[in-house]
Amino acid sequence: STSKHAAAGANKNNGNSVANTSHDVSVKQKIFITDPISPGSVFFLPNGAKIFNKLVQFMKLQQEHKFGFKEVITPIIYRKSLWEQSGHWENYKEDMFKVEGQDISKEEYGLKPMNCPGHCMIFKKFDRSYHELPLRLSDFSPLHRNEASGALSGLTRVRKFHQDDGHIFCTKEQVEEEIIKCLKMVDLCYSRVFNFNKSKNNDSSSYIIKLSTRPDKYIGDLEIWNHAEDTLKSILEKSGKKWDINEGDGAFYGPKIDILVKDHNNKTHQVATIQLDFQLPERFNLRYKDKDNSYKRPIMIHRAAFGSLERFIAMLIDSNEGKWPFWLNPRQAMIIPVNTKIKSHVSESKQLASKLRGESADLDDLTPVPFNSFHFNVDVDLRSEPVGYRIKDAIMKNYSYLIIIGDEEVETGRYAIRTSEDRRLQHLTEDEIFDKFMKLEKNYK
Amino acid sequence: STSKHAAAGANKNNGNSVANTSHDVSVKQKIFITDPISPGSVFFLPNGAKIFNKLVQFMKLQQEHKFGFKEVITPIIYRKSLWEQSGHWENYKEDMFKVEGQDISKEEYGLKPMNCPGHCMIFKKFDRSYHELPLRLSDFSPLHRNEASGALSGLTRVRKFHQDDGHIFCTKEQVEEEIIKCLKMVDLCYSRVFNFNKSKNNDSSSYIIKLSTRPDKYIGDLEIWNHAEDTLKSILEKSGKKWDINEGDGAFYGPKIDILVKDHNNKTHQVATIQLDFQLPERFNLRYKDKDNSYKRPIMIHRAAFGSLERFIAMLIDSNEGKWPFWLNPRQAMIIPVNTKIKSHVSESKQLASKLRGESADLDDLTPVPFNSFHFNVDVDLRSEPVGYRIKDAIMKNYSYLIIIGDEEVETGRYAIRTSEDRRLQHLTEDEIFDKFMKLEKNYK
Ligand SMILES: [Zn+2]
Ligand SMILES: [Zn+2]
Repeated sequence: STSKHAAAGANKNNGNSVANTSHDVSVKQKIFITDPISPGSVFFLPNGAKIFNKLVQFMKLQQEHKFGFKEVITPIIYRKSLWEQSGHWENYKEDMFKVEGQDISKEEYGLKPMNCPGHCMIFKKFDRSYHELPLRLSDFSPLHRNEASGALSGLTRVRKFHQDDGHIFCTKEQVEEEIIKCLKMVDLCYSRVFNFNKSKNNDSSSYIIKLSTRPDKYIGDLEIWNHAEDTLKSILEKSGKKWDINEGDGAFYGPKIDILVKDHNNKTHQVATIQLDFQLPERFNLRYKDKDNSYKRPIMIHRAAFGSLERFIAMLIDSNEGKWPFWLNPRQAMIIPVNTKIKSHVSESKQLASKLRGESADLDDLTPVPFNSFHFNVDVDLRSEPVGYRIKDAIMKNYSYLIIIGDEEVETGRYAIRTSEDRRLQHLTEDEIFDKFMKLEKNYK
Repeated sequence: STSKHAAAGANKNNGNSVANTSHDVSVKQKIFITDPISPGSVFFLPNGAKIFNKLVQFMKLQQEHKFGFKEVITPIIYRKSLWEQSGHWENYKEDMFKVEGQDISKEEYGLKPMNCPGHCMIFKKFDRSYHELPLRLSDFSPLHRNEASGALSGLTRVRKFHQDDGHIFCTKEQVEEEIIKCLKMVDLCYSRVFNFNKSKNNDSSSYIIKLSTRPDKYIGDLEIWNHAEDTLKSILEKSGKKWDINEGDGAFYGPKIDILVKDHNNKTHQVATIQLDFQLPERFNLRYKDKDNSYKRPIMIHRAAFGSLERFIAMLIDSNEGKWPFWLNPRQAMIIPVNTKIKSHVSESKQLASKLRGESADLDDLTPVPFNSFHFNVDVDLRSEPVGYRIKDAIMKNYSYLIIIGDEEVETGRYAIRTSEDRRLQHLTEDEIFDKFMKLEKNYK
């Protein structure tokens, strides 16, 4: 039934761009705003921050407990000399913001457009041994790139954005296995949890793979570039997946595998990326001690599965048109007391809401809200409108579940619950509803 | 037993500053590094990021589900005109970093030192009604202040930091209740979950309250300042708590209640703050529609419970000297197989580690790691050193629990577990250990 909706949606918003769709849904659901006071930087409103945080939590859990990443939190401004060393000052300067103190010292900094140089600093800070490789660092820092102001738009063309960024430092021998793992992560995301265009076309694969090769502006030797491109080609060949070449679209420090998904207009958008880099380890003189006590240069893999969180959210909205899966929905359930003049209908509605929200409203009780507890986004519609009207309204507002509480429900303690899409009612107790919601959220449904 | 340790610790590091203690513990536990490439910005290493993220999770849960806050995610750079409007450009300029595009446009921005103006933008973006008040917004954005480079030190004197920041927009009538709620949040933190100097002195109160009044550099009318100061005084009087005046130490936009805790040298450090502000709502021309349809000016309360996360972590280290409570410990348990040459000792150790870590290492199984699942920081000491040596080593490294697995444990499936401080062993099954750890973490123990 979700896919039916998405297909219907695709027809409805045909012709609209991803930016337009996400703007329209955002206005209705209060997801984000923008303002000329900070062009290209999104203000996530409470509903948007909920979606953003859920996606980050999902990714942190996968990265840390399935794929062996370790999160770090790194600076946002770095002295100019770092960007000179990394090659950004030479190859990326116009896309960067410059930062300056306003006191006498006037030191010059660059606002980071990427996390890689910061992660190189962490690698370099310690004597590294082959034991520690592959070392996989992840980072959710805000990044800034100075996109032309004319091109700025909602969530899709931004100056400030967040990546589910990660860098793998590994030996030559580990490259293949690590890239295969990166492709598994992509599979987990785009085949298992987020299905962008499965409903759109009956394509067996839900994402597109492109190999982006050496651009005009690049650093390093041609020979190393060719080797890196060949490595990626051979891994893609072995994977048995369909892939394509995107000539000249690599990063300035190395070739990359880009993962794209389609919007409702069949236009492709890049989400994930896996980049092979022999340059930065050279520039930062990174090394590790091998088994034979000799020092070797590690290889660096840059990768992200969502890519830009902002763009990813726009793509989600494009494909769901505001009909979020339960776990991401800032509007998970609406409780509707049948008669708002009957005390028990109202009080039972409020009590159920409080239970599902996991609220702990008694401020004289200083017991903290427990770690990892579940808290669902539940509202109560207390307006004295007819039940049918309030049901329709909640469906229009994209609540996942509607819970109706009247005499029978108060008496039996079993509440009438239905989805937005299916009129059929189930009668469940408070605990059964909580369990049902918990299972959905745990499993990213 | 925790308090005994803290007291012993306090004797040990007498004379050391908080900065020195946190530096020493950080080196041992790999919590953070700093580098001249970004003076005053901390690189949190994986262990530090774990502590940082746990504290943020704790605070988000309390703010959202007990105290009614809604999280937002806001821009980091704003046009100069915003800072002129807020008064920062006039009163705070030297502490701010300037940001500039490097393309032709050369627009001038300020890197935010505070979240308040951004939250005012969010308030202003919608027509607000008295229904929506109090509106409580929270934000964990990175902030930058250009501290003199000579004063920079570890976690305590930084240029980049994070606050558990929040702003309450409310009516005049709501001010008192909201400030009382802020004080309850402080109580929950400093009397219930984090006890800084209870062990140090037998003081009944674990924190100090100061009222900071109008500074030399201020904006707004004297009369309004006097009213704001009187309001805070009267609330503090009614609270029955001990408090003190800190003449001239208020923010440039209003007076504040500062909460301080003592380090092991009895030196006080500010953590939480509650600030009453009539100025920013005026400067941003904020208004809401009241019951009678007239427009009124809301009042703004700035508050933070941890204050700077970076300084808060330094204070925690100062008081625990690296002996973290279980829930915050990046080293929660060390598993020690008795004989590393006996296969079953090793394999059972690894299996238990994997279970407690909640690892999902089979990459062919694309089932995602579930939302809100528990994952403990568990290591296995596979070195062929004597058990006694490895136990001592794990204690020295501040693991909370030691789990020893030999023949008896393999046979019965009940593992020998003890704390770092208490030699007595318990014998628990895998599930019992997981449950024990889960209870500790859930309850912030
Ligand atoms: Zn990178
Ligand atoms: Zn503020």
